Amino acid sequence: MGINLTNFLSSKSKNLKMINYQDLDHLDGLSISVVSANLYGTSRDDLVMFYFRDGANFASVYTKSKILSENIKWNLNQKTKKIFSLLINTRNANSFTGEHGYKSMQNIAEAIALELTQKQKDDEENPITIKPKFILFGCTGTIGEKFPVEKIISQIPDLIKNIKYTQNKHVWMKAALGIMTTDTEPKISMEECQIGKTSVKLYGIAKGSGMIHPNMATTLGYVFTDANLSNEILKKLLQKNIEDTFNAISCDGDTSTNDMVSIFSTGKANHSKILSANDKKLREFDLALNKILLNLAKRVVADGEGANKFITVKVLGSKTDADAKKIAFSIANSPLVKTAIAGEDPNWGRIIMAIGKSEAEINMSKLALRFGNINVVHKGKLHISYDETKTAEYMKNTDIEICVNVGSGKKSFTAYTMDLTKKYIEINTDYRS
Amino acid sequence: MGINLTNFLSSKSKNLKMINYQDLDHLDGLSISVVSANLYGTSRDDLVMFYFRDGANFASVYTKSKILSENIKWNLNQKTKKIFSLLINTRNANSFTGEHGYKSMQNIAEAIALELTQKQKDDEENPITIKPKFILFGCTGTIGEKFPVEKIISQIPDLIKNIKYTQNKHVWMKAALGIMTTDTEPKISMEECQIGKTSVKLYGIAKGSGMIHPNMATTLGYVFTDANLSNEILKKLLQKNIEDTFNAISCDGDTSTNDMVSIFSTGKANHSKILSANDKKLREFDLALNKILLNLAKRVVADGEGANKFITVKVLGSKTDADAKKIAFSIANSPLVKTAIAGEDPNWGRIIMAIGKSEAEINMSKLALRFGNINVVHKGKLHISYDETKTAEYMKNTDIEICVNVGSGKKSFTAYTMDLTKKYIEINTDYRS
Repeated sequence: MGINLTNFLSSKSKNLKMINYQDLDHLDGLSISVVSANLYGTSRDDLVMFYFRDGANFASVYTKSKILSENIKWNLNQKTKKIFSLLINTRNANSFTGEHGYKSMQNIAEAIALELTQKQKDDEENPITIKPKFILFGCTGTIGEKFPVEKIISQIPDLIKNIKYTQNKHVWMKAALGIMTTDTEPKISMEECQIGKTSVKLYGIAKGSGMIHPNMATTLGYVFTDANLSNEILKKLLQKNIEDTFNAISCDGDTSTNDMVSIFSTGKANHSKILSANDKKLREFDLALNKILLNLAKRVVADGEGANKFITVKVLGSKTDADAKKIAFSIANSPLVKTAIAGEDPNWGRIIMAIGKSEAEINMSKLALRFGNINVVHKGKLHISYDETKTAEYMKNTDIEICVNVGSGKKSFTAYTMDLTKKYIEINTDYRS
Repeated sequence: MGINLTNFLSSKSKNLKMINYQDLDHLDGLSISVVSANLYGTSRDDLVMFYFRDGANFASVYTKSKILSENIKWNLNQKTKKIFSLLINTRNANSFTGEHGYKSMQNIAEAIALELTQKQKDDEENPITIKPKFILFGCTGTIGEKFPVEKIISQIPDLIKNIKYTQNKHVWMKAALGIMTTDTEPKISMEECQIGKTSVKLYGIAKGSGMIHPNMATTLGYVFTDANLSNEILKKLLQKNIEDTFNAISCDGDTSTNDMVSIFSTGKANHSKILSANDKKLREFDLALNKILLNLAKRVVADGEGANKFITVKVLGSKTDADAKKIAFSIANSPLVKTAIAGEDPNWGRIIMAIGKSEAEINMSKLALRFGNINVVHKGKLHISYDETKTAEYMKNTDIEICVNVGSGKKSFTAYTMDLTKKYIEINTDYRS
């Protein structure tokens, strides 16, 4: 199991304490439907549909892997201003599945389009003809296995039938559970803020537990808002806020072919028109988006495969942004640092090693290192007050903060990761068996 | 324990089968002395001295970490054409030990110089005054602990007393054992070749088991030869041959502050004078040097912390050398690939993931992947003959070969690594306890 978030929140964690399971409820213009397509050979939910009856503006960021899954290729190919549905399946990544995998997306999109067009006719005053290109896909699971297109298509009528126009916390939880793979906890988060004097909601879910490293939108994360913002503005806000949230986490340094983070806006909130991402009225929204993304990203790390500890790596005093990030991830991805923390060993020498191997510019005479509030290294030397016993005590916390100042400039970066345990090995040595 | 080399060699390994423990013997101009300075609080040997009575030409490559251990700084600062002694200690890396660490090197060098000068007077017809700068140091162990200078200095008289002018396989084995830390097997290797019509020897020892990644001469490796080659020629040959040997291995992607590979030539072999590293008479020597470095490097990987399997990652058809190396190490360092192999799971999708995340240029329509002789991917698709059961059988081997052709050029690189097991976690969560 990963960190039990509920315990984590109620007891030790500073990071996640204000972000226990929130009660997401209705978000105007959005419907959710969840079914089992028996992809796991059990009756667990594995197919989650988000439906926007009047369409939604949207923006996505995708994996930077040179090998893209077929659903990501599909998503990138659709030229459309509005999205009407997002379908997420687990168990099969639809990656390295070639023409069959891509054609599966096409077939499923056509089937959904047909059914949703009928639903529009049944339910709407001004029905819209739903085209396949109005559908986006999120896929997660094993790479290289034949995509179970028939199983999924056979469930589409049920998915559509289950659509209800009012949502509550239970269906959000069901959706968050339905997109999990090796996750041990669902990941949901919400924020509310004002655009001008109008309240708007941001609701989000995510999944991810392994194969997680920031080369762009990592893992699957979806944010839904009733704000009324253009695709262009959504894109700018998402790209800006992804950097210190989903792109700041790492579980194992591996990057999926399927990573995707999207934002959808239903436009139902009745605020004044926003013409630019820099509009001052968006300040609160910008902040709320950052919060919800960071909250979801931290939940992914906290539930990292085999994790017992949540680790925050703050790098200060770097010459460039790139250097700060390089050092932060050199520490966050180091198996030796992560195993030392798993062993509750304040083996700060390994952090020094990781700083050194990053090849970023550091000023040794100013180098400082802290565990939480404990000074370890100061001005390039072991701090005069350093007390191994006290530090070993600190390492027993679930929530470990490593703060490094490399004394060569003013840039900073914070990365989030977890410890490396035997459980990680256990999970990943028999993932498919 | 790592892979038991003896079993490994006698049974399954193709890689190491011709390189079982060889009987290194006398090498003219070189003496070895090994003692215990009680650095581990046990009586194990932890201090190894190599002594060149008439001096040796030499060349070294060091870690590319931005944080250098104090012994590496010492080595880099000595301007000398000949080296008379190399002293290696284990248990303490003398890294991040500041002025005290550096001064310790100075003090030990002075003490050794004094004793060796006396020994020169006692033993040699034309005694040389040994200066501190004629001494090099190799240190390995924990980073950031105070360097045990007194313990080491107190053993110098014994070290010098133990010097014998004729060496045999037992003292070589003792030396290889004396430089081990978390290693479970000593690492020795030898080659013999001709320069012109004169036979020359190359003898080597190495240590290393964790914190191993190729950012330059990785781990500790020392090669000794009786060839008569200038420092400049040794440097060129070492730099050239380090790239596909010690710089092609990775255990965990971590890089030490102490890495060092050196070559020493005593000049006792009576071959004609060699004026250039490109001299045709050096061809055999060049090849032999590559062999001995590769043999030692492979032994380091085979003994990688917790290793049960030796993994060779061959990347072919790359556009550039840099891309080939990037892909090879993206695979070799991927925790998900390494755990899959630990679990004997032919989860080739994770290799596809690792190729993709390298961000190197690949031609999907030509992409090929093999496990040993088993075709997995061909022309960017799962091979028509692919048989999961047969491949799962292959994964039971101790010696796994992954061969990738990315179809975008003619460059290649081969990396060596091992699987990632619970034992790695066990070793590294309680390294210091």
